Amino acid sequence: MTVEMHTLANGLRIVTEHMPGLKSASVGIWVTAGGRHERAEQNGVAHFLEHMAFKGTERRSAIEIAEAIEDVGGYINAYTSREMTAFFARVLENDVPLALDVISDIVLNPVFDPAEIEVERHVILQEIGQAYDTPDDIIFDWLQEAAYPDQPLGRTILGPSERVSRFTRDDLAQFVEERYAPGQMILSAAGAVDHDSIVTEAERIFGHLTAREARVAEPAQFSGRERRETKTLEQVHFALGFESPGYRDPDVYTGQIFASAFGGGMSSRLFQEIREKRGLCYTIFAQAGAYADSGLLTVYAGTSRDEIGDLAELTIDELKRSADDMTPAEVARARAQMKAGLLMGLESPSSRAERIARLVAIWGRVPSLDETIERIDAVTTGDVRDFAGRLGSGGAALALYGPLGSAPAPGALVERLAA
Amino acid sequence: MTVEMHTLANGLRIVTEHMPGLKSASVGIWVTAGGRHERAEQNGVAHFLEHMAFKGTERRSAIEIAEAIEDVGGYINAYTSREMTAFFARVLENDVPLALDVISDIVLNPVFDPAEIEVERHVILQEIGQAYDTPDDIIFDWLQEAAYPDQPLGRTILGPSERVSRFTRDDLAQFVEERYAPGQMILSAAGAVDHDSIVTEAERIFGHLTAREARVAEPAQFSGRERRETKTLEQVHFALGFESPGYRDPDVYTGQIFASAFGGGMSSRLFQEIREKRGLCYTIFAQAGAYADSGLLTVYAGTSRDEIGDLAELTIDELKRSADDMTPAEVARARAQMKAGLLMGLESPSSRAERIARLVAIWGRVPSLDETIERIDAVTTGDVRDFAGRLGSGGAALALYGPLGSAPAPGALVERLAA
Repeated sequence: MTVEMHTLANGLRIVTEHMPGLKSASVGIWVTAGGRHERAEQNGVAHFLEHMAFKGTERRSAIEIAEAIEDVGGYINAYTSREMTAFFARVLENDVPLALDVISDIVLNPVFDPAEIEVERHVILQEIGQAYDTPDDIIFDWLQEAAYPDQPLGRTILGPSERVSRFTRDDLAQFVEERYAPGQMILSAAGAVDHDSIVTEAERIFGHLTAREARVAEPAQFSGRERRETKTLEQVHFALGFESPGYRDPDVYTGQIFASAFGGGMSSRLFQEIREKRGLCYTIFAQAGAYADSGLLTVYAGTSRDEIGDLAELTIDELKRSADDMTPAEVARARAQMKAGLLMGLESPSSRAERIARLVAIWGRVPSLDETIERIDAVTTGDVRDFAGRLGSGGAALALYGPLGSAPAPGALVERLAA
Repeated sequence: MTVEMHTLANGLRIVTEHMPGLKSASVGIWVTAGGRHERAEQNGVAHFLEHMAFKGTERRSAIEIAEAIEDVGGYINAYTSREMTAFFARVLENDVPLALDVISDIVLNPVFDPAEIEVERHVILQEIGQAYDTPDDIIFDWLQEAAYPDQPLGRTILGPSERVSRFTRDDLAQFVEERYAPGQMILSAAGAVDHDSIVTEAERIFGHLTAREARVAEPAQFSGRERRETKTLEQVHFALGFESPGYRDPDVYTGQIFASAFGGGMSSRLFQEIREKRGLCYTIFAQAGAYADSGLLTVYAGTSRDEIGDLAELTIDELKRSADDMTPAEVARARAQMKAGLLMGLESPSSRAERIARLVAIWGRVPSLDETIERIDAVTTGDVRDFAGRLGSGGAALALYGPLGSAPAPGALVERLAA
């Protein structure tokens, strides 16, 4: 690995990874500000800001931003998550300085033109509509709300339409002032990149920014509630969540290995028991998502109205059984999948840039591959069984959407789990 | 490029591409049999077969298939398209022989156990339900049906529920007999692979298969109809299709460059005029899909009930305007995007294996990158304007889904285009 890091005097961190043999690179800015850093009245502003970055800077109009990258065949995009906002581009080797110039321009110098704010407001309201029309998208927002009710971490990224309809230029500027300090920014690049040139460029572009103190996010408090919405759909969409480790918790890899063995692939328990043996669904999976101070072990499935009761109970029964009889072979397979996934993911510059940015955000450094593999290898079958046995002790969050029929309540599921 | 090809005596083709520096590989079998190779009463059988490949072979049960690949951290999957069915795995370097063994086993030796057929039937019925619950998925099926009515190319891949409910073991075996001849199979591998070892293995595995004559697919006949379905959704989902070149047509790159400049990226006309200037939608794009003997230039957007009329008319107006004033700068940008996309795509073993398999299916060989780039560079602004001017001369296919409101008829759109 050829990961190199540098921190500017104002706290902005630069991390690069050179990948020999590649002709392209991914370069971007990851800001440690997202949905959970919004106060209630700000909900949706981090995402609105991400959109406005593309609507014009002091030097470039919206079309000039798009053309600058697309003229050279590149690709530019951004996303907002609960803990991060990322702006990134994928370009050929020679266009890395251009990409860095454009990305830094849209992050540092957006003009927030009031007419453009009105247009973009409309675009975001359409985006909210699209999310509602995608049951297996919106249901994860509802699960999040059920897991972390009345807290920043439980709110949607897009924000409610009523708030999005009212944001002003000042709301955007204030969020930037509060959350876009240089210490909150990580410049990450991977692929055909040269660390020293990027540091020199970054010094020129970001060196003048004044260090500001970081604000701390409100701690998350898991609380298993439910949200169910009846709608005329073909399937009942089912999402079940249990509190699991945050990414700084030593148990985070145990949670990921459990999720993989429980519902991560075709050989996993949920896939085999619920889809392969009984045919109750097409999609079913478990995943372990992690935030700084909490995490969510999630099971998702889509099934029919008549089968949701069976599917939910079987999921609980498999969970219960996992605590007793998860085998060393299953755990070994999950470890192998995590390690191979890590190695394969490293073959793409986009996923490498994303990975090193996230690691710097979490740890302030990029742990070596060996260090990560050691942590994965250290997880035992006993650890995984114990983990499974503790799930649900803090309750379960549940979201259901569709023709609900005999859909169960989370209380009944938790009782079944505890029985 | 280090692409190497070999054809077995029975017609099965092997194509590999070694990628130096990689530690993983993608290996799979692409069968030139898909939805359009089904007779009406067979609709859905190619996809059913793809599912059954994973349900057990003479040597492996369903769980053993999944475990064989996932034990070593690999990933196995398959898809059915209108002209192909593909089975592939991504594994680390040392596991390539294992992946080839498993993939060839599921393609050649599925047992079609009647009990497993019943379970899988249920899974596929759930998959059909899931597609219906995803408006921006199902709408492309409806557009396809409107573009190629009463023809194999216009039918869905999944097939109608009524047929899926009735398929038997014999239906599956018959489709294999008709369409899975060795001459219809392409073994493709890219990444950390060695051509000679793969050929040796392939000879051992596939050498005994008897050559059989290929059946020819029914020619496609574009015919612009419409399908509209009213549903209580947040957005109206709009998909408009025009006939465009098939992939053996010399104009195929012109169509792709037009689609890119018209609606391919953030700098494209549709994105700028309809989203960036007017905020009428979140998602809008154009793409040029190609089959052997026909192609579909598609525009998709999601918008609100009150704005669908404007959005549809603006799309037509932009299309009309493109024939007159598409600029050399726009065409140059689209060419740059295609070329860079090609180079960046080549950095992943999965996309390389897919690419070389498709090229062999179309051309019987893998044209060099230089040859492809030459064809892209040969497309002029005049070509693109002429292409835009001819669109719609064969009518337009239209699919609409949602709260339809003032949604236009395809006839009115074609008239507006011709006006």
